[in-house]
Amino acid sequence: MNEILELLKSRSSLRKYENKPISREDLDYILEGAMRAPTAGNMMMYSIMVIEDQEKKEILSHTCDNQPFIANAPTILIFVADFQKWHDYYRYNGVEEYCKKNDLEFNRPSEGSLFLALGDAIIAAQNAVIAAESVGVGSCYIGDIVEHYEEHKKLLNLPDYAFPAAMLCLGYYPEGLKLTPKPRFDKKYIVFNEEYKSLNSDEIKDMYSSLNNRFSSENKYKAENYAQMHYAFKTGSDFSEEMARSMREIIKIWNGNKL
Amino acid sequence: MNEILELLKSRSSLRKYENKPISREDLDYILEGAMRAPTAGNMMMYSIMVIEDQEKKEILSHTCDNQPFIANAPTILIFVADFQKWHDYYRYNGVEEYCKKNDLEFNRPSEGSLFLALGDAIIAAQNAVIAAESVGVGSCYIGDIVEHYEEHKKLLNLPDYAFPAAMLCLGYYPEGLKLTPKPRFDKKYIVFNEEYKSLNSDEIKDMYSSLNNRFSSENKYKAENYAQMHYAFKTGSDFSEEMARSMREIIKIWNGNKL
Repeated sequence: MNEILELLKSRSSLRKYENKPISREDLDYILEGAMRAPTAGNMMMYSIMVIEDQEKKEILSHTCDNQPFIANAPTILIFVADFQKWHDYYRYNGVEEYCKKNDLEFNRPSEGSLFLALGDAIIAAQNAVIAAESVGVGSCYIGDIVEHYEEHKKLLNLPDYAFPAAMLCLGYYPEGLKLTPKPRFDKKYIVFNEEYKSLNSDEIKDMYSSLNNRFSSENKYKAENYAQMHYAFKTGSDFSEEMARSMREIIKIWNGNKL
Repeated sequence: MNEILELLKSRSSLRKYENKPISREDLDYILEGAMRAPTAGNMMMYSIMVIEDQEKKEILSHTCDNQPFIANAPTILIFVADFQKWHDYYRYNGVEEYCKKNDLEFNRPSEGSLFLALGDAIIAAQNAVIAAESVGVGSCYIGDIVEHYEEHKKLLNLPDYAFPAAMLCLGYYPEGLKLTPKPRFDKKYIVFNEEYKSLNSDEIKDMYSSLNNRFSSENKYKAENYAQMHYAFKTGSDFSEEMARSMREIIKIWNGNKL
């Protein structure tokens, strides 16, 4: 197995960082790695915010589902899905008038642009993760950056057609720390040949069986099995509801309230 | 610069492939690399379809905006954003009844789950791109897989809470082929410190100036500058409209027509 496959195989999320800033050289490698990521039509529909201001990190540690370790990351990168620059480029070059003259509709960013920009931003983020890992910088995705859209929009001074798609906490590995990569579901439940394979109840039971030992009958959720517990603390939780609300607001902006 | 950074830097989309199947060993490396990708809450909200059937590849080459090279890729991977397995896991374990008993709402997959699953699928796809590159397999993303949702759903036998988030064409590099990575926008227009920087008209003009030489005054779009031309063949095109429609349908399913 080559060095790159080894890196992919051994990487884990890092939530505890050496107390030392990321060198500008390493940060440049990370950002340049991100900017070399594949991008739809070479349009680079994203922007990357480098956050190192302590106050801002503290705020993010609260708004992103109260995770104190966020404030301890020396550097945070926020990847925003960004169609604002293209929208402005079109506007400054008379595209609206061009459309009128040629009987075309001038569309504002749509759900399609949202999808492409989100993809661009996330692909770039994953390149950053790998570039970081290769220079000894660990990382952790924070999906919660999609919550509290209005607050984050203000905090990051975002225009209408840009929203946070991914956030990474970055920092060097603490000396001596060895992480064990988490187990994944069995390949036969993730990879399918030629078409999707719907799983029956026995297969679902088998797929999720490894999670059973996390269940404790004395849990604060009054759950009777791990699925119920998982639903209570994750999918049915307040932060999930907030994420759905936030994402719904973002979609509304991009689709011009068409839905 | 280490080997991994070199790989990120030199990678380009490959649209012409050596006429030889991908070895099972290399395919396994690629799939295992994908499955080691970071995933929200270790939930792996995606499935990967391995497509090698020629007829299916031909169909995809038509439905994905008529790009014949797609049918020549020895292997196609489709990453679907997938909440169906979790939804079924909850259902088979009485989560709906549990919710009733405990005065909780049983939510179907929401815009929040859609966002997380889309992210999971795309992050895994990018790991596959990098794993592939490391064993001499080139790749090309096909964003058009998000178009014609209903047709692709049928073709891939997808359940309701799974939709194509990324498609990769994969194949070995043809002997002797050397690709030159495409230029990217200047870093100062992509990377911002601490907060978003809205660009004024001069900055937008400068950012996009490298595209000007692609403009030809004799173009079939009757465009007067490159921005207008770009809008006509890309953002304002039929396939963009189809992508928006398709994505809108997907969102409707995941939000239970709430919007």
